[in-house]
Amino acid sequence: MEPYKYELSEDELPRQWYNLAADLPTPMQPPLGPDGKPVRPEMLAPVFPMNIIEQEVSTQRWIDIPEEILALLAMWRPSPLFRARRLEKALKTPARIYYKHEGVSPAGSHKPNTAIPQAWYNKQFGITRLTTETGAGQWGSALAFACSLIGLECKVFMVRISFDQKPFRKLMMQTWGANCVASPSNETQAGRDILARMPDTPGSLGIAISEAVEQAVTDKGGKTRYSLGSVLNHVMLHQTIIGLEARKQLAKAGEKKPDVVIGCAGGGSNFAGLAFPFVCDKIHGADITILPVEPESCPTLTRGPFVYDHGDTAKMTPLLPMHSLGHSFVPPPIHAGGLRYHGMAPLVSQTVVEGLCTPRAYHQLKCYESAVLWARTEGYIPAPETSHAIACAIDEAVRAREEGKEKVILFNWSGHGLMDLAGYQKFFEGRLTDYSLPQADIDKFLRELNGLPQAPAKKTGKW
Amino acid sequence: MEPYKYELSEDELPRQWYNLAADLPTPMQPPLGPDGKPVRPEMLAPVFPMNIIEQEVSTQRWIDIPEEILALLAMWRPSPLFRARRLEKALKTPARIYYKHEGVSPAGSHKPNTAIPQAWYNKQFGITRLTTETGAGQWGSALAFACSLIGLECKVFMVRISFDQKPFRKLMMQTWGANCVASPSNETQAGRDILARMPDTPGSLGIAISEAVEQAVTDKGGKTRYSLGSVLNHVMLHQTIIGLEARKQLAKAGEKKPDVVIGCAGGGSNFAGLAFPFVCDKIHGADITILPVEPESCPTLTRGPFVYDHGDTAKMTPLLPMHSLGHSFVPPPIHAGGLRYHGMAPLVSQTVVEGLCTPRAYHQLKCYESAVLWARTEGYIPAPETSHAIACAIDEAVRAREEGKEKVILFNWSGHGLMDLAGYQKFFEGRLTDYSLPQADIDKFLRELNGLPQAPAKKTGKW
Repeated sequence: MEPYKYELSEDELPRQWYNLAADLPTPMQPPLGPDGKPVRPEMLAPVFPMNIIEQEVSTQRWIDIPEEILALLAMWRPSPLFRARRLEKALKTPARIYYKHEGVSPAGSHKPNTAIPQAWYNKQFGITRLTTETGAGQWGSALAFACSLIGLECKVFMVRISFDQKPFRKLMMQTWGANCVASPSNETQAGRDILARMPDTPGSLGIAISEAVEQAVTDKGGKTRYSLGSVLNHVMLHQTIIGLEARKQLAKAGEKKPDVVIGCAGGGSNFAGLAFPFVCDKIHGADITILPVEPESCPTLTRGPFVYDHGDTAKMTPLLPMHSLGHSFVPPPIHAGGLRYHGMAPLVSQTVVEGLCTPRAYHQLKCYESAVLWARTEGYIPAPETSHAIACAIDEAVRAREEGKEKVILFNWSGHGLMDLAGYQKFFEGRLTDYSLPQADIDKFLRELNGLPQAPAKKTGKW
Repeated sequence: MEPYKYELSEDELPRQWYNLAADLPTPMQPPLGPDGKPVRPEMLAPVFPMNIIEQEVSTQRWIDIPEEILALLAMWRPSPLFRARRLEKALKTPARIYYKHEGVSPAGSHKPNTAIPQAWYNKQFGITRLTTETGAGQWGSALAFACSLIGLECKVFMVRISFDQKPFRKLMMQTWGANCVASPSNETQAGRDILARMPDTPGSLGIAISEAVEQAVTDKGGKTRYSLGSVLNHVMLHQTIIGLEARKQLAKAGEKKPDVVIGCAGGGSNFAGLAFPFVCDKIHGADITILPVEPESCPTLTRGPFVYDHGDTAKMTPLLPMHSLGHSFVPPPIHAGGLRYHGMAPLVSQTVVEGLCTPRAYHQLKCYESAVLWARTEGYIPAPETSHAIACAIDEAVRAREEGKEKVILFNWSGHGLMDLAGYQKFFEGRLTDYSLPQADIDKFLRELNGLPQAPAKKTGKW
């Protein structure tokens, strides 16, 4: 019998995270404060605990994973590496397609890989309560799960329209003991101000971030901090356990290296988690094509410039050097999947500037078609976000067939779609269409960047 | 680091299913036809393919698992055996609690363990289309998944009230290419007759079975058969892969044997799947307490007599020797979980008659409380059915603490609850109550057994 799965035992769990900042050919540009000057670590202290801020600014290559965090990650890690043999047959491709199954975590996605360490470091620092925002609910669920294991209170501000449309996500958080409220809420000044002006607003990620940050920084006891599920350097760091495991598993499968590495990219963390160890290999000479995949309706990397921009709509965060469509950008409502973030992790953005990674954008109908083909060959029903990586993997496998090449394709199966079946329903009912964003729409949002500091795109030109 | 998981590699997959019928101290009594005479295998041929009927009546101890079935099961099997260390700590118990995680299958439960073989044997026999019924949707999803992999059409009659209340289960089936309709439907004579009399009926499992069986036996091309997800001998057989794997995994964990084996029991298949290999060990002298757990609101094993009864409400099936509450029994609507079947697998019933297994019944509030404690310690959110096994495992662990004994407790974590969060919502909102079924209600349903043949409870008295 040909093997489907390449598993690692718990004692083969990686003991260190990999920090790409140590190996980037051009150093990262610093985040800037409202005065245009670099943000100093201590300025972030009201928002994050100092042990996480240290990771955020670290350029140390390997960072030890504390034993207690490993023991918690071992509840579902190492995650299995599967070979998609049935899809290969359906596509008649000579390519060997491997995928890292991150849907096996209790929250159903890769998000707990950073939720657990973030909760743990906060607890170590004496924090008793975390606040966060969530859109569709993946991140809120993951942090609720992590806080329940580690013993922290957890407060989640969930964008109102999702709160109303996705009651089951809220129930997952409640099952894990978190307090999830619709945003804007009456619990913060930011929320009350917005409700006074727009009582019927559906909410937005920007508003929810403002509420979560406000509750953290205004806690007089100093025992509350804020937690973010993507974009920041320490989040990318925690997710590299995915790629580090995958490297060992590919070796067990008898593969020297992948030829193509693929991940979907919203804020960038699941892509970075799988890809960064292979970006390191590429920097050191390996021939690997690395593809972050985003939706055509939110084409941050493929059509957004590399700029300094705020991480949130309300401009509460520092300016980050990244690809961005402008901090007020929202994708058209016709889009049914996730990956709706206006910006992109600075570390991921820099790999694109350098030419180490080559972004692709996909229309949603092709992604849903790929998801259904996947479910009918490989069984697991993917999240709409994950379907972007699947669509790209299928394209690469078809290309390998056309070129007659035995390529090794590796992608990140970032999460299952069992909480997202409403999107499938719209697809089956023909209620989804593709949408190419007019350049004029992008330009409109980019105008809000006028007057912000410039982020020159620095590259070595080697890739 | 202390291990959480005890995994097997794919080449450690069991190569044979275990058939308890070969080892039962008293032979099984045969199913009876409407004339009160034993059903001959060929009489079942319009409903099931002959290769499955052969398994249904087999008394051979070990039955080879075909290589192609193994390759499909390997998509998620061997399933991990976890040790619930965090729950142990929370309970301060000296017991070691192990659970077999069947929620890792693409359909999210143990059901595909038999859906895959059933679809495969039908395909081998030249069948092109399977029909089935589903209540809450677990079994319909599993068969849809199996048919998509094996290349069969799949038709699912889903009880109308569930069809309307659980649209996401239908979408899972649709994603896997199955055709799922609300029952009663206009597609069968049985459905049309009922709709003419009761146009607003919410449907029932009994009606849905009638529709599915009718479509199988009236297919003029002879290429359609019916598939059942529990109760029958061949279903128990296919599920024994769970217990056979668990036995190997316990050995890897350094345990000689479990002291207590627990599974929830509706039709009996997930309980049997884990327990039967250990029932065999018990028959051969091992000291093991084996506990099937059912809801107090559908107490088939704990309060139903051992009788000959029909498997369905419409009395289309043969009479089976089993514990039953009467074929018209329906649990009170206050009950939010699964496990609503009026009867019980004949093989499971016989182990109870023999005293090899000792049934327990639990109220639903305790089950939901246990499920929430589980989610907050062990992470994974269980199905309401599974929560019955968890509640019993917790009780046994607490008893071990009180007795100061280092017991080894093993239970079947039969599936995740991500499609069942509406039940959790009712629990959190205080809309669930416990319900003890009055004896008069049971007696009312049992009166319909008057005039049916008797099934004498045969036992050796050894246990």
